[in-house]
Amino acid sequence: MKFDIAIIGGGPAGYTAAERAGSNGLRTILFEKKAIGGVCLNEGCIPTKTLLYSAKTLDNIKGASKYGISVTSEPMFDMEKIINRKNKTVKMLTGGVKMTVNSYGVTVVEKEAVIVGEKNGLIQVACDGDTYEVTYLMVCTGSDTVIPPIKGLPDTDYWTSKEALESVALPKSLAVIGGGVIGMEFASFFNSMGVQVHVIEMMPEILGAMDKETSAMLRSEYAKRGVKFYLNTKVTEVSNKGVTVEKDGKSSVIEADKILVSVGRKANLGQVGLDKLNIELLRNGVKVDEHMQTSHPRVYACGDITGYSMLAHTAIRESEVAINHILGVDDRMDYNYIPGVVYTNPELAGVGKTEEELAAAGISYHVQKLPMAYSGRFVAENEHGSGLCKLILNEYDCVIGCHLLGNPSSELIVIAGIAIEHGYTVEEFKKSVFPHPTVGEIFHETLFA
Amino acid sequence: MKFDIAIIGGGPAGYTAAERAGSNGLRTILFEKKAIGGVCLNEGCIPTKTLLYSAKTLDNIKGASKYGISVTSEPMFDMEKIINRKNKTVKMLTGGVKMTVNSYGVTVVEKEAVIVGEKNGLIQVACDGDTYEVTYLMVCTGSDTVIPPIKGLPDTDYWTSKEALESVALPKSLAVIGGGVIGMEFASFFNSMGVQVHVIEMMPEILGAMDKETSAMLRSEYAKRGVKFYLNTKVTEVSNKGVTVEKDGKSSVIEADKILVSVGRKANLGQVGLDKLNIELLRNGVKVDEHMQTSHPRVYACGDITGYSMLAHTAIRESEVAINHILGVDDRMDYNYIPGVVYTNPELAGVGKTEEELAAAGISYHVQKLPMAYSGRFVAENEHGSGLCKLILNEYDCVIGCHLLGNPSSELIVIAGIAIEHGYTVEEFKKSVFPHPTVGEIFHETLFA
Repeated sequence: MKFDIAIIGGGPAGYTAAERAGSNGLRTILFEKKAIGGVCLNEGCIPTKTLLYSAKTLDNIKGASKYGISVTSEPMFDMEKIINRKNKTVKMLTGGVKMTVNSYGVTVVEKEAVIVGEKNGLIQVACDGDTYEVTYLMVCTGSDTVIPPIKGLPDTDYWTSKEALESVALPKSLAVIGGGVIGMEFASFFNSMGVQVHVIEMMPEILGAMDKETSAMLRSEYAKRGVKFYLNTKVTEVSNKGVTVEKDGKSSVIEADKILVSVGRKANLGQVGLDKLNIELLRNGVKVDEHMQTSHPRVYACGDITGYSMLAHTAIRESEVAINHILGVDDRMDYNYIPGVVYTNPELAGVGKTEEELAAAGISYHVQKLPMAYSGRFVAENEHGSGLCKLILNEYDCVIGCHLLGNPSSELIVIAGIAIEHGYTVEEFKKSVFPHPTVGEIFHETLFA
Repeated sequence: MKFDIAIIGGGPAGYTAAERAGSNGLRTILFEKKAIGGVCLNEGCIPTKTLLYSAKTLDNIKGASKYGISVTSEPMFDMEKIINRKNKTVKMLTGGVKMTVNSYGVTVVEKEAVIVGEKNGLIQVACDGDTYEVTYLMVCTGSDTVIPPIKGLPDTDYWTSKEALESVALPKSLAVIGGGVIGMEFASFFNSMGVQVHVIEMMPEILGAMDKETSAMLRSEYAKRGVKFYLNTKVTEVSNKGVTVEKDGKSSVIEADKILVSVGRKANLGQVGLDKLNIELLRNGVKVDEHMQTSHPRVYACGDITGYSMLAHTAIRESEVAINHILGVDDRMDYNYIPGVVYTNPELAGVGKTEEELAAAGISYHVQKLPMAYSGRFVAENEHGSGLCKLILNEYDCVIGCHLLGNPSSELIVIAGIAIEHGYTVEEFKKSVFPHPTVGEIFHETLFA
């Protein structure tokens, strides 16, 4: 069977590519070995946000009396109902993706596909006993949870994010190994549900490469709510009773009913047969250029398999760039304005450069920042809440970075992303009109700070 | 006493002008006869949003079981606490404005000022027995609630928005005369608090000049929640027992314990002494050019007194344009990208052109629209919720309008505003990266629809 393009992997990169290719008239086939929507829709972004919204609803009820609203008894939660709603939401959204992909005439095969090789200028892909000949190939096989080589781990009944999203039973205490974005989102969820949470992080601060000032503010907020943080701390051994850690050469034990491993994700390079086309790798992923082209000019790689950004919206944009390249539409990938969000409560978000990376690179910059309380709406809706808006500007007064703490940062950060994308100076950005009162006005205020 | 600039009126236009003038080294004096912050901070935008957030908290508790969270009894509210918090929030924010204005060295006089005339090339302003001589004058005296000449109204104990924000006692039923933005926000609040609300609107649809499709969707949502709407309906008489209305020549009575008059606002032109400098008027406000200059080259008018946009964020931008003009910074007022927001639950927001005005003007356009349910985050956080994202595009495929229904439209609409401001085409706007999952992604999806 012949197609213009085969896409292996039906996560955000793959299904977006299928939609864009199909809608532009390419004969398109999409292979997915497990579940359309990939990790993101099935066991990542969407399920976590569904659970986190239940947690937020619970938090809001607990804090309602600050707004003159009260309940006579403690609110209750039903984990089975919460998990069922999550499953229902996932089903509805994956159903929506399938419907959209189908509406563009894409052939969908829900089986594992592998690259066979190249013959007569066509790339050959095998799946379920059939061979497909295609002009273009897009590899979007995503990533897997990294399982670190910790002593005792194979004999421990630990969770990764996948199991944490499925468990109706709550542990009394949870040790989160790795205080990155995934670790912190689960720490936030289980903290809201009354679980004693311990977050163990090897580095001096949580949230990896994100802005240190807002990360520390978020950590301090969760510490107040009872989450215990262990920074600069290495896990040396685990068991079903807890975690042995080492800090400054001293060893101690953190007791915990359950362990969540969230130290990162790694590109799925192994099984798809990249070697059959001699696809070059770079560091931990497939090497691509700014058009997402691999070392083979008709093979593209998008999403986590590049081992680079590991975010669903990066994958979506990458696949759009790749399809545009195939279609001859001028476009290229630019990672300078990809936002990153942590869906804790309050939310934390960042885009562009951080002070830390600019300082390390010796690039001069200046900062304008204001507490979120300069937004009237933030004050009206966040009794006793704190937060920050930080803009990072280069020597020409162009916005090159932005870091936010406070709801709804997830929805606001794209505004700074657009400013970076288009190279707005402070003077230009000042002319944008934010409705009053909104939390977004904090950008306007900070530009004048 | 001599100043570079006198500003009469301390609302959003006035305090913003004072901050910008002061921070740029102009010797600045700000007069406010009543309360710094104006109607917006003291009895408009901020107080309503504070009350509406309490109402939203109540709504969220009532709907919590959809997310697996429950309370054993009906949530209760304490109107006194809600009103007190509103007052505290207003006090805190007006305090913040005063502090900021002071920090820029602005002289603030909390008394009524009037224009005296011009002498030796300086404008003279009188206040509390003193005369001030200034090079520039900015008039920002705002607007007042319109009290329509309805039979029986003077003898009725009715509310305007001001009284509605202060009342601890709730009526059993409320007749809202005028289904514009203010009317609908109060209808939303009192509906949440269990009051039987009637909205009476002379026009065929609520929300005046806003997009008709989303306005009708919002109306239908509130009708489901029990609000009664009377469209194409004229109020002919009122009393403390209710409202007599006329529709299609037939008269009927709507019983209501309380009446809220919200038919609009009119510019405060009368008392400030505009005639002393022969300031020209236009329609219902002061005539200004694109630099907010009046017919007198050193007199500017900003905010509701122009009788034009009547929005706080318009006032803020206008005053920045005016101060830039005084400072010699290139800038001009552009009303094409001023957003409008209705803070109901769900929120409704719009910016730029509507289909209705384009059709009336015979300008060709096309529409791309999608239900909000195409956003995974919207689905995760709005069980059974509906909403719409509508983009209006011109013949060059540039975004010229956007209309949204669904939370948090208030925070998202600025993104479309920026697209209009900078003239983005669909192809350009597609390249912006929205974090996944966010409600904002609906823009991205709609661009591809």
